[in-house]
Amino acid sequence: MKSERPVKDSWRTSLHEIIFEAETPAGKVFDVGLLLTIVLSVVAVCIESVTVYRITYGSWLRAFEWGLTILFTIEYGLRLMAVRRPFRYAFSFFGIVDFLAILPTYLSLFIVGTQSLLVIRALRLLRVFRVLKLSHFVGEAQMLRAALKASLRKIIVFLGAVLTIVLIVGTLMYLIEGEENGFTSIPRGIYWAIVTMTTVGYGNVTPHTVAGQTLASIVMILGYGILAVPTGIISVELAGVTRQKVSTEACPECSDEGHAEGANFCKNCGSKL
Amino acid sequence: MKSERPVKDSWRTSLHEIIFEAETPAGKVFDVGLLLTIVLSVVAVCIESVTVYRITYGSWLRAFEWGLTILFTIEYGLRLMAVRRPFRYAFSFFGIVDFLAILPTYLSLFIVGTQSLLVIRALRLLRVFRVLKLSHFVGEAQMLRAALKASLRKIIVFLGAVLTIVLIVGTLMYLIEGEENGFTSIPRGIYWAIVTMTTVGYGNVTPHTVAGQTLASIVMILGYGILAVPTGIISVELAGVTRQKVSTEACPECSDEGHAEGANFCKNCGSKL
Amino acid sequence: MKSERPVKDSWRTSLHEIIFEAETPAGKVFDVGLLLTIVLSVVAVCIESVTVYRITYGSWLRAFEWGLTILFTIEYGLRLMAVRRPFRYAFSFFGIVDFLAILPTYLSLFIVGTQSLLVIRALRLLRVFRVLKLSHFVGEAQMLRAALKASLRKIIVFLGAVLTIVLIVGTLMYLIEGEENGFTSIPRGIYWAIVTMTTVGYGNVTPHTVAGQTLASIVMILGYGILAVPTGIISVELAGVTRQKVSTEACPECSDEGHAEGANFCKNCGSKL
Amino acid sequence: MKSERPVKDSWRTSLHEIIFEAETPAGKVFDVGLLLTIVLSVVAVCIESVTVYRITYGSWLRAFEWGLTILFTIEYGLRLMAVRRPFRYAFSFFGIVDFLAILPTYLSLFIVGTQSLLVIRALRLLRVFRVLKLSHFVGEAQMLRAALKASLRKIIVFLGAVLTIVLIVGTLMYLIEGEENGFTSIPRGIYWAIVTMTTVGYGNVTPHTVAGQTLASIVMILGYGILAVPTGIISVELAGVTRQKVSTEACPECSDEGHAEGANFCKNCGSKL
Repeated sequence: MKSERPVKDSWRTSLHEIIFEAETPAGKVFDVGLLLTIVLSVVAVCIESVTVYRITYGSWLRAFEWGLTILFTIEYGLRLMAVRRPFRYAFSFFGIVDFLAILPTYLSLFIVGTQSLLVIRALRLLRVFRVLKLSHFVGEAQMLRAALKASLRKIIVFLGAVLTIVLIVGTLMYLIEGEENGFTSIPRGIYWAIVTMTTVGYGNVTPHTVAGQTLASIVMILGYGILAVPTGIISVELAGVTRQKVSTEACPECSDEGHAEGANFCKNCGSKL
Repeated sequence: MKSERPVKDSWRTSLHEIIFEAETPAGKVFDVGLLLTIVLSVVAVCIESVTVYRITYGSWLRAFEWGLTILFTIEYGLRLMAVRRPFRYAFSFFGIVDFLAILPTYLSLFIVGTQSLLVIRALRLLRVFRVLKLSHFVGEAQMLRAALKASLRKIIVFLGAVLTIVLIVGTLMYLIEGEENGFTSIPRGIYWAIVTMTTVGYGNVTPHTVAGQTLASIVMILGYGILAVPTGIISVELAGVTRQKVSTEACPECSDEGHAEGANFCKNCGSKL
Repeated sequence: MKSERPVKDSWRTSLHEIIFEAETPAGKVFDVGLLLTIVLSVVAVCIESVTVYRITYGSWLRAFEWGLTILFTIEYGLRLMAVRRPFRYAFSFFGIVDFLAILPTYLSLFIVGTQSLLVIRALRLLRVFRVLKLSHFVGEAQMLRAALKASLRKIIVFLGAVLTIVLIVGTLMYLIEGEENGFTSIPRGIYWAIVTMTTVGYGNVTPHTVAGQTLASIVMILGYGILAVPTGIISVELAGVTRQKVSTEACPECSDEGHAEGANFCKNCGSKL
Repeated sequence: MKSERPVKDSWRTSLHEIIFEAETPAGKVFDVGLLLTIVLSVVAVCIESVTVYRITYGSWLRAFEWGLTILFTIEYGLRLMAVRRPFRYAFSFFGIVDFLAILPTYLSLFIVGTQSLLVIRALRLLRVFRVLKLSHFVGEAQMLRAALKASLRKIIVFLGAVLTIVLIVGTLMYLIEGEENGFTSIPRGIYWAIVTMTTVGYGNVTPHTVAGQTLASIVMILGYGILAVPTGIISVELAGVTRQKVSTEACPECSDEGHAEGANFCKNCGSKL
């Protein structure tokens, strides 16, 4: 696959290996350094949002931010150069994130108040999984992703049912409690229903009438049962994914997989495992 | 089954296919259009409940609502015509929902304040599962329903135990805290116990005495353990249902079921699957 | 077992069947009637605790309560007569509950404010499981009880760990936040830690300093993970109990039980199932 | 293993058995007494932190604390003497805890306000597991620890994803709600996001704008689904650990493992178990 590339590509290949891969020592150093820089940058954005620090260290933080932005811009340019199809990278998930990560600082020259958007750099932290690729974490992440993917349809069906219940319950509470008890509109009733069914329970909107509190009690008890469903779905799918992983032993004769844990003979061809 | 119907029924059959089925292109277009209309109608009811919008756009929203109600009335009439036994449809779950969905607007001519009941139209959104019938969602929905059905009895037993605990704990808190700390009656104590045991925790009624806070701590910790039970029940039933689905393939020779997912030979008689 | 009882016992046997069993029609009628009376009695106690109703309907409720107490006293006497060993019944769980259920009304002749204790009658509602004995509910209840019993030790170990964490975290919050932020003592800090770790979150005691909010964030995230443990424990035990139930098929030859679901041959003696 | 130790070690061995082991009667008495003393000491620290009690019983509590500290100091000295390698004990987990448990009282002679640190004695309560060693609790604790260890990597991956979501959501809320609605900085937004996603929901910081409440609703519903993941992970790992424990019996002939609980014959070679 790697044979007969033109000489011109040799520097691109090594640049690609450093920036995009994490298998070589240079690539790993680059990735770990990049992650630390991203963490620093996110921390700086968080600190700048605190009024006290913005007033005291404002100029330092701005200088620091510009330094990082220039670094990230150079990195973005190198990434575009390192790949053979720059457009495919530029419109990939991480390509867009990398671009959005440097945009707000330049925008802040023209528009006031865009610095907070820099926190989108946090999304770049998802690159951390690439550094972990070398370790066993990638397998765990893949299992979690596979389980979430397998349970997606069930959860959509479930969310559809929950949203319908929330709509009905929210409206009923609006009718029962009325505007004088804080349920000023149906959307506010729906908001209350979501806050209650997810057991968050802020307590800024609560029922005051006996009928409202009775309905709320029913919603809480039944709601708790209903919200046990996603946990069950994910448990089952995770168990399925884990079970598949367990049966990685392949038959030496027919290379069939998926045998039970204690099996002695291949379930496919009958030869000894 | 479809042979030798009288000619008179041919238009009814095609009408039935469009309105009640979602397999033909026309039926699917009708159902998707219907769902969008229902969503619009629910959104309109929600918007109308907000005082600011009711004052500003009140007449527009009322006109929109009447337009939709007339549309839904025509649809209801067509549904009654499309089925051979109109009474059976009229008293089915969706028949009643469809009727209740148009009733409030007409009632609002005579009684003030019934418009909010229009949110019952949200129940019509459950028709969404019919549109999804074509896809794989119906299987997921059936599995969820089967799991909930299988766990119903266990959950009723569990709810009975929880209600008894809630009664006792609520009364104890009423006795311990008394009216001066917000526990003005036993029902209010029960309400507090439900809010606490479901971990909603609004915080508008909280214990103030040391004894009350100690009891509350015990209720919270034990309550958390108790409420782990429905999650466990549903997980187990979902796992059972999922396992059954996997093994639906039957052996063509001995019709044995319950084979592993990748099995090539019947685990019972050894013939090829 | 029932053979050769003395004649004197015949009325006792039929009395016992009516009061203690629910298999005969008379017994079932008695039990359902008893349950309804208990529900009415609990509702009356709840209503009486509401100040408005106590003032308006006080005398009616008191008369109703005395009527029920006399009924329950007669029932208690009949129970004592119906069993051959009255002491064993009197000191059994339900014997004590039945006694405590009539005590408060008589005590209220001498001491003021004991009526609320009548809610202990709610415990009598647990008799509902006997009425359900005829149906399949008893199996479900037994499974739940078996699962809870099997997970008891694991949950005790888990609660021990949680209590230690709660002690340490509560003290740390007391030291960090101090009395000026509502953490007036270590027990109050522990109360806050329990309210937070169980995700109840009343919001009447919350951290105000940056260090306190950081610690609270860690407690919440880790606490959520920790509290996932009882759910896991109960799920696993319930699954085990359910699995055991599945394998109720016994071998026709050696009557061995516990075969896998799709098994064709007995795992014990090898004969066909 | 215990053969040919020098005579000098004989008192050390018996001291070690009393202080460090719980198998002998003397060792068990020592451990149970120690646990009770620790509980008393923790209770005393808690009581002293309550202002009312500190003023009334201050001198008594101080005297009690000094008495316990001297006792624990003697115990610490004996522990150092009882082991053959005192440094290894001194720098082990329990060695450090034992030292920290006596330090604050002595420090309080020089620095004011260190008494609260005495609650670190609660960590000594973890020794309770040693007393339980004799019973079956140790197996349960080991299973829990094994399950938590096995799920550690998955949970780290999961926490990484949650922290990224929390960062993004917290910043979005800061941008949407702004300082006038209590979201005074990005860290405060992140704090709100953690409080909401873990379903704690204090209610001291809540969204007030429509956009903020809509985002909050999405965060709550999706967040609930996301936080179902650790429960699923732990359930699956616990199930795996439980399954392994069940099948620890090995065939005496072929040493095959993984037999069903009630099996009489090896499922592999057919010899009697």
